[in-house]
Amino acid sequence: MGMTITQKILAKHSGKDFVEPGELVMAEVDLALANDITGPVAIEEFKKAGGRTVFDREKIALIPDHFAPNKDIKSAELCKMLREFAKTQQIKHYYEVGRMGIEHAFLPEQGIVLPGDLVVGADSHTCTYGALGAFSTGVGSTDLAFAMMTGKCWFKVPETIKFIYHGKPNPWVTGKDLILHTIGDIGVDGALYKAMEFTGDTIAHLTIDERLTMSNMAIEAGGKNGIMEPDEITLEYVKNRAKKPYEVFRSDPDAAYSDIIDYDVKKIQPKIALPHLPENVVDVEAVDNIVIDQVVIGSCTNGRLEDMRLAAKVLKGHKVHPYLRLIIIPATQQVYQEMIKEGITEIFVDAGAVVSTPTCGPCLGGYMGILAKGERAVATTNRNFVGRMGHPESEVYLSNPAVAAASAVKGRIAHPKEVVCCDI
Amino acid sequence: MGMTITQKILAKHSGKDFVEPGELVMAEVDLALANDITGPVAIEEFKKAGGRTVFDREKIALIPDHFAPNKDIKSAELCKMLREFAKTQQIKHYYEVGRMGIEHAFLPEQGIVLPGDLVVGADSHTCTYGALGAFSTGVGSTDLAFAMMTGKCWFKVPETIKFIYHGKPNPWVTGKDLILHTIGDIGVDGALYKAMEFTGDTIAHLTIDERLTMSNMAIEAGGKNGIMEPDEITLEYVKNRAKKPYEVFRSDPDAAYSDIIDYDVKKIQPKIALPHLPENVVDVEAVDNIVIDQVVIGSCTNGRLEDMRLAAKVLKGHKVHPYLRLIIIPATQQVYQEMIKEGITEIFVDAGAVVSTPTCGPCLGGYMGILAKGERAVATTNRNFVGRMGHPESEVYLSNPAVAAASAVKGRIAHPKEVVCCDI
Repeated sequence: MGMTITQKILAKHSGKDFVEPGELVMAEVDLALANDITGPVAIEEFKKAGGRTVFDREKIALIPDHFAPNKDIKSAELCKMLREFAKTQQIKHYYEVGRMGIEHAFLPEQGIVLPGDLVVGADSHTCTYGALGAFSTGVGSTDLAFAMMTGKCWFKVPETIKFIYHGKPNPWVTGKDLILHTIGDIGVDGALYKAMEFTGDTIAHLTIDERLTMSNMAIEAGGKNGIMEPDEITLEYVKNRAKKPYEVFRSDPDAAYSDIIDYDVKKIQPKIALPHLPENVVDVEAVDNIVIDQVVIGSCTNGRLEDMRLAAKVLKGHKVHPYLRLIIIPATQQVYQEMIKEGITEIFVDAGAVVSTPTCGPCLGGYMGILAKGERAVATTNRNFVGRMGHPESEVYLSNPAVAAASAVKGRIAHPKEVVCCDI
Repeated sequence: MGMTITQKILAKHSGKDFVEPGELVMAEVDLALANDITGPVAIEEFKKAGGRTVFDREKIALIPDHFAPNKDIKSAELCKMLREFAKTQQIKHYYEVGRMGIEHAFLPEQGIVLPGDLVVGADSHTCTYGALGAFSTGVGSTDLAFAMMTGKCWFKVPETIKFIYHGKPNPWVTGKDLILHTIGDIGVDGALYKAMEFTGDTIAHLTIDERLTMSNMAIEAGGKNGIMEPDEITLEYVKNRAKKPYEVFRSDPDAAYSDIIDYDVKKIQPKIALPHLPENVVDVEAVDNIVIDQVVIGSCTNGRLEDMRLAAKVLKGHKVHPYLRLIIIPATQQVYQEMIKEGITEIFVDAGAVVSTPTCGPCLGGYMGILAKGERAVATTNRNFVGRMGHPESEVYLSNPAVAAASAVKGRIAHPKEVVCCDI
């Protein structure tokens, strides 16, 4: 019997020819990642366990992106701890604020994560890199400490659900809408501890940025990882970025899947996830007059250049609705620079938007756009749990960047075609 | 006997021909200002006192700049209160985040404060507008509530100290250095409840941005206000900005001063204020090897376009020191846009700096760059009190933007000439 791409990467990193779902393996990691929230916990575990030197200073990434630039004294102390560990251990992939971005956007952008890699990160959205054909998944800080010491991590090889997307997406439908539709279909536990393999002819219509958005949200369906086979677009993307050799894996035709789910993409229109779960997905057009107070465009889900281009297409020549805050957060310094070069930032500021420096910020209720009691936000982020962006009685609606931008102009949840006369 | 410019403005607004120092007057205000911290307190006082409608919806400015975009739930609630009051009262000069900037930079930039105006603000740095020949001063939230209700505020007419600056400033010496030198000379209570009148031929060499910096820090010497007579540069600045008529006042030759202090500007070199008082001023060149962790360029003191141009002159082609955070915060959206157009933002990001959206942020320990225990920052802000930017055991050093930029490159307090080979 053949293997899925997920099985193949796990087998390769465990020194085995074949692994099967359910099997426990101890695999070598290509990169162990932590941020300013999880890193300090992992570092403490590392020290408690007697750790002195990390297994490989070139295979660890420490990125202060969550509450940095430091939100408060506590976050300043956490960042300081991360920085001092990075200095002492001479961690190659430590990046100071101003020289990086949100971890899950920065690492693929810089070619630090590549096809075939096995990556663990003490952050649930580590699954993002699956879009490049890597196996990547979130782990707890203790497992991360173990990985930092030994270069290894244990896994139960997951079963795989194969998702097949057919057809070219409709106007204003993006990777975000496809993954929202998927989560809406299978539910937030629909892929619990399973690999989600995204396939079908639709994928070729998606940019890498859209694919990263899809893989990023695999965890919102409970997925262990969310993976795609590398294609020409992937290889083009990594060609000039890769800083080391990489290997392309593909699922065998006779690989075993626990389930196969088909979607006719022509039937999918722009989506929005209502509070308070990412599975509460409806068509934007089905939503009544929901007045909003804030719009956030950014995060590891939708803070990349293609996302900004899409938002700019909607916002160009328009103004943000009075009293509404539109907060735009490029995911990396490179995106920030490119936005300026392409005139996107000018469009945003002219419209009356805030353009912040890269940070996770409001996505997880950190800072830079926290909601008061009773306030509502449309966000391109990944989670709309109770109190996720602020007060327990605030609400978050998840959408793609075009819907978010249109909603910022209208002051209520809106379809992009309400703002832009012609389809893209 | 004649009057000083300060006396004249207070007399005019009290309906009197003459007022003398020590006299209590009830004066009409042209603008009553509050922010997201002081505004809610003033609004509560306004309501407690039975206030229903503000005296003039066009003469009140409410600007959420301190902890906005909302830092946390508490700041979100405060901003919401400000916003709702502004909506209900139809306040003309309410500006939402993304459409404004730090109050003391935004109001002069937009021609909302003009020469001859009498402005009260529930913020100590309201004295900034003196640079345009206005009388402006900080008041408590209760006084502000009274002003919002009645359009009036009481004042004890202050005595005036006349500061005369002679000569053209040396290279890398800015308005910031002149005011630091002055505060270093007279101390943080050297002008307690007095008007500081800045005069002399040096003023003609200073841009409006530099003058605003000087007036901004009058409060750091205890001054009631810090004022300059409008000259051609002032009138040129306000010409295309003024949205209403204004009146130019000048001190009479026989006006009475409590003290007259002369400075030979040729003897002044770039300055730095050591922790923990703005009066601890020394020459940058006299400072030994003080290693720093963070640099902040921004605030109502030094977040204007000229400040950014100066910092860019130093940073161009250089890199921020490893592990050091350089946080640059344009004071307004207009400065943010101009920086992009002039290529300044590109220089900053290339150097490895964070460029944030306008906010007071770290200046008063809010967010966007808070210091951990034992950390040191060089900042272009106005106060270096204990714990001002974070942990009580952190330290803040105050300087001009060129010194701050040079220090960011060197990783220690540095003179700009150490980074830029030739003088400007």
